[in-house]
Amino acid sequence: MPILTHLDDKNRPQMVDVSAKTETNRAAIASGEIAMSREAFDAIVNARVKKGPVLQTAIIAAIMGAKKTSEIIPMCHPINLTNVSCDVEEFADRAAFRLVVTAKTRGATGVEMEALSGAAIGLLTIYDMVKAIDKTMTIGEIRLEKKDGGKSGLFERKA
Amino acid sequence: MPILTHLDDKNRPQMVDVSAKTETNRAAIASGEIAMSREAFDAIVNARVKKGPVLQTAIIAAIMGAKKTSEIIPMCHPINLTNVSCDVEEFADRAAFRLVVTAKTRGATGVEMEALSGAAIGLLTIYDMVKAIDKTMTIGEIRLEKKDGGKSGLFERKA
Amino acid sequence: MPILTHLDDKNRPQMVDVSAKTETNRAAIASGEIAMSREAFDAIVNARVKKGPVLQTAIIAAIMGAKKTSEIIPMCHPINLTNVSCDVEEFADRAAFRLVVTAKTRGATGVEMEALSGAAIGLLTIYDMVKAIDKTMTIGEIRLEKKDGGKSGLFERKA
Amino acid sequence: MPILTHLDDKNRPQMVDVSAKTETNRAAIASGEIAMSREAFDAIVNARVKKGPVLQTAIIAAIMGAKKTSEIIPMCHPINLTNVSCDVEEFADRAAFRLVVTAKTRGATGVEMEALSGAAIGLLTIYDMVKAIDKTMTIGEIRLEKKDGGKSGLFERKA
Amino acid sequence: MPILTHLDDKNRPQMVDVSAKTETNRAAIASGEIAMSREAFDAIVNARVKKGPVLQTAIIAAIMGAKKTSEIIPMCHPINLTNVSCDVEEFADRAAFRLVVTAKTRGATGVEMEALSGAAIGLLTIYDMVKAIDKTMTIGEIRLEKKDGGKSGLFERKA
Amino acid sequence: MPILTHLDDKNRPQMVDVSAKTETNRAAIASGEIAMSREAFDAIVNARVKKGPVLQTAIIAAIMGAKKTSEIIPMCHPINLTNVSCDVEEFADRAAFRLVVTAKTRGATGVEMEALSGAAIGLLTIYDMVKAIDKTMTIGEIRLEKKDGGKSGLFERKA
Repeated sequence: MPILTHLDDKNRPQMVDVSAKTETNRAAIASGEIAMSREAFDAIVNARVKKGPVLQTAIIAAIMGAKKTSEIIPMCHPINLTNVSCDVEEFADRAAFRLVVTAKTRGATGVEMEALSGAAIGLLTIYDMVKAIDKTMTIGEIRLEKKDGGKSGLFERKA
Repeated sequence: MPILTHLDDKNRPQMVDVSAKTETNRAAIASGEIAMSREAFDAIVNARVKKGPVLQTAIIAAIMGAKKTSEIIPMCHPINLTNVSCDVEEFADRAAFRLVVTAKTRGATGVEMEALSGAAIGLLTIYDMVKAIDKTMTIGEIRLEKKDGGKSGLFERKA
Repeated sequence: MPILTHLDDKNRPQMVDVSAKTETNRAAIASGEIAMSREAFDAIVNARVKKGPVLQTAIIAAIMGAKKTSEIIPMCHPINLTNVSCDVEEFADRAAFRLVVTAKTRGATGVEMEALSGAAIGLLTIYDMVKAIDKTMTIGEIRLEKKDGGKSGLFERKA
Repeated sequence: MPILTHLDDKNRPQMVDVSAKTETNRAAIASGEIAMSREAFDAIVNARVKKGPVLQTAIIAAIMGAKKTSEIIPMCHPINLTNVSCDVEEFADRAAFRLVVTAKTRGATGVEMEALSGAAIGLLTIYDMVKAIDKTMTIGEIRLEKKDGGKSGLFERKA
Repeated sequence: MPILTHLDDKNRPQMVDVSAKTETNRAAIASGEIAMSREAFDAIVNARVKKGPVLQTAIIAAIMGAKKTSEIIPMCHPINLTNVSCDVEEFADRAAFRLVVTAKTRGATGVEMEALSGAAIGLLTIYDMVKAIDKTMTIGEIRLEKKDGGKSGLFERKA
Repeated sequence: MPILTHLDDKNRPQMVDVSAKTETNRAAIASGEIAMSREAFDAIVNARVKKGPVLQTAIIAAIMGAKKTSEIIPMCHPINLTNVSCDVEEFADRAAFRLVVTAKTRGATGVEMEALSGAAIGLLTIYDMVKAIDKTMTIGEIRLEKKDGGKSGLFERKA
C-alpha cells in the first residue's frame, strides 16, 4: 500500500521530516482557472484596458498568498521563497481567466504547495472583486504543471 | 456597464464601504472537489477507516482557512465569524472528494469569500498530504452554493 | 454522555455555532506560573529593578498573544477584544512568577481562551528570555480563575 | 500630569479598556509622503502611465496593512473595518508621492492607527519597489489629518 | 552575574545576534500535560475510539502552533522548521493527557521555543474543545525534555 | 531608462528572483523620528524614568514588526533574520524621539525593508500610546542609514 508520508506510524498527522534532505534549488509551476459570465469578463477586461486593477490585485494576492502557504496548509514547512511570479491568460471565447504561478526556493523541500496556493488565492481574489456582478463564477482546473529540483526530479503534467 | 464595486472612481482597488449597511445574520455555503487516482483515493479512505487524519486535517484547515480570509483576499473585510463547519462527501466511483463549507456571521457584509476560501484551503490540504502518491490531482468546481442575509437576499445555485 | 460541542453529529471538529447567541459584555481571568532556579529568578528581578524588560516583554507578549487566539486555537471564534491586561506576581520564596491575564469582549462568545492563551504565551516569553541561564524552568498551573457574562453566568475557581 | 491611558496604575502597558464605550461609526484619515530622486519618480510615473503597478501595489499594501494594525501595534484593539481606501497624489515638481488613507469602523474605538499604519505600509511598499534605483528615498510627514466619531468628536489638523 | 542575552547593554530587549553562529541540525523535545475531570477525560477517549477529533485537532494545532513561534514570542528568530511531530499519552488513572512535541531545524539557533510553544498550544486546544464539560482543567508541567545541536550541545532533563 | 526590478516584462508586479544569488551575511540600519508636543514628550520621559513602558513597547514592536516585513510588504522575500535590535535617542530640545533599527540575515537578499519596517512600526507604536495627549504628532525622516553585504556592497547615507 502506498505510504502517506504525512501520517506517522500511529496514523497521526505530522510534518514530513526533511532534516536529512539536501538543500537544492527547487521550482514549481501551478495553474488554475475562473470561468464567468460574459458581463463579468467584460467588466474586468474593460477596467484592465485602463489600469487593470482586478488582475493586478489578483497577481499581488497570488504572490502574497504563496508566502502564506505554511500558515494555511497545516503540514507545510515554512520556507524562504526566492521567487514568486504570476502570469494571467485571457480566454475571451469562453469568458475565463487562467493564472499561472511560479514559485522557487533553495531548500530541503519542494514548492508545489506554494504555487498551488498562490493560484487558488489569486483566483479567489478575482471572484471577490467581481461577485457583485456574477455569483455563479466557478474556480477550477487548479493543478501542478511542472516541478523541478530535489530527489524526485522533474515532473511535467501531460497535456 | 456593470459597476465593479471594488474599484473607486479613479479605477483603483478599494475595500467596499459597508459602514452604512445594516448588521444582520448572514450565511454562505460553498463547495469544491478534488479528483485523484484510484490509488490516492484508496490511501485516504483506508486511513480514514482507522482514524481519518487526512480528511480531519482538511476539515480543520478549511475552518482555520475561513478565518484567514480577510488576510489573504486583499479587499475582504475582517469579520467575526459566528460559525464555520465543513462536510466531506466521498465519490468512490470517480475517486474524488467534495468539501462543503458553511460560514456564518452577524455583520454588515456577506461571508461568501469565507466559505469559498475555506473550501479551497481544505482541498489544497488534501493535495498536500497525498501528493507523494499522486501529483496529477486536480482541484475544481469551487463555487458558491447558497448565500443568505443582507440586502441582496437569498442566492441559490441552480443544479 | 456529555456533549462535546466542538464535534458535529458525524464526530468531526467544528466551530460552535454562536449565531443565535446574544451579544453581551463578557470577561475572563486566567493565570499561570513559571518556576525557575534562584539564579534565573534573580537575573530577572535585578534587571527589573532597573527597567524590567523581561517582565515588560512578557506582559506585551501576553496581550499580543491574547489577540492571536483565534489564529492558534483551531475552533476559536475571531472576536473583538475590548480589553486585555496582564498582572505579574513575584514569589521570591520559591523563585517563581505568576501571570494573571484579564480579557474582555462584547460579543456572542466567551473569552476564556483569550485569557488562557495570553497567560501561556507570556510565560513562554519569560522562558525564552531566560533559557540561557536555566533550561529546567517549568510552566504550569495554567487555569481559568473567573469567567463572567453570557448564558452560563459566573464561574469562579474554588481556592 | 497628562495620563498615558496605555499604562496601568503600576506603569505597565495595557490595552485601553473600551468595554463601556458606545459603538458608533468612526472614521479617520491619515497621510504621508515619500520623496525621491527625479530618476526614481520618473520610473514610477512612466510605468504608471502604462499600468501603474507600483502605485497600485502600494494602494493594495496600504489597504491590507490597515487590516494588520492590531497585529503590529501592540496595544491596538482588533476591530472590524467597514472601509479602507487609499488615494495617491503626485508632486512632479519635488519628485514625491503622498498617500491619503481613509479607514472606517463601527465600534467602540477609533481608527486613527489603522489609517496611519496603512499610510506607512503603502509608503514602505513604494520604497521596496524602487530601492534598486534610489536608496536615499525618505518617508515622512506621516500624520493624522482628520478623525470623527466617538466621545472625543471631530479632530482636524490645522493646515 | 549571569547574562540575560536578550537584553542589550542598555538593558533593552533585543533578538540575540546569531549571525556568526554555525548552521547545524538542531532538535528539541518538549512536553506538557492537561489534567481534567473523569467525565471530560471519558468524553475525549470515547470520541477518540471512533475518530479521535479532539486529540487529532490538538496534534494539528501543536504542529501549526510550533510554526507560529516567532510571531508570538517577541525575541524568537524566524526559522525554517524541517520537522514537527506530536505524540499523545493517555493517563487514564489520573484523567490526564500528555503532549510530547518534537521540533527540528537546520540553522543557527535552537528550537526549544518551537517545541514548547507547540506543546502549550496543543494543550490549550484540548481545553478549548472540552471546556463546555469542565472549566477547572489545569495545564502544567510544560518543560523542555531534550535539546541537541549547536554549541551548547546535548541537554536532557533528569527524571 | 532605469529598470524597476519588481515589474516583469509585461509590467506586472513580481517578487525579484534571487534564486541565483549567493547567500552571504547582510545587514541594514534604518532610522526614523516622531516629533510631538512638549507635554507628550514629558509624559513619555517621566514614565520612562520609572519603567519606560512606552519606549520599551516601541522597541518590542519594532523587533516584532521587522519579523512581519514579508507579510506586509507585498514583494518582500520571507527571510530568516539572525538579529534585530532597536536603539532610541531622545531629543529633549525639540521634543522628539529617534528609533534606529538594525537587521541582519544570512541569505540571498538584503534586509533594508526589515530595518525600515521595524522603524516605522516602532514609531507608530509610540503614536498609539500617546495619542490621547497629542494627536498632532508627526512621524518622519524614515530612511536607510547603512546597508552591507551582497553584490551591491556597502551603502552609507551622507550626513
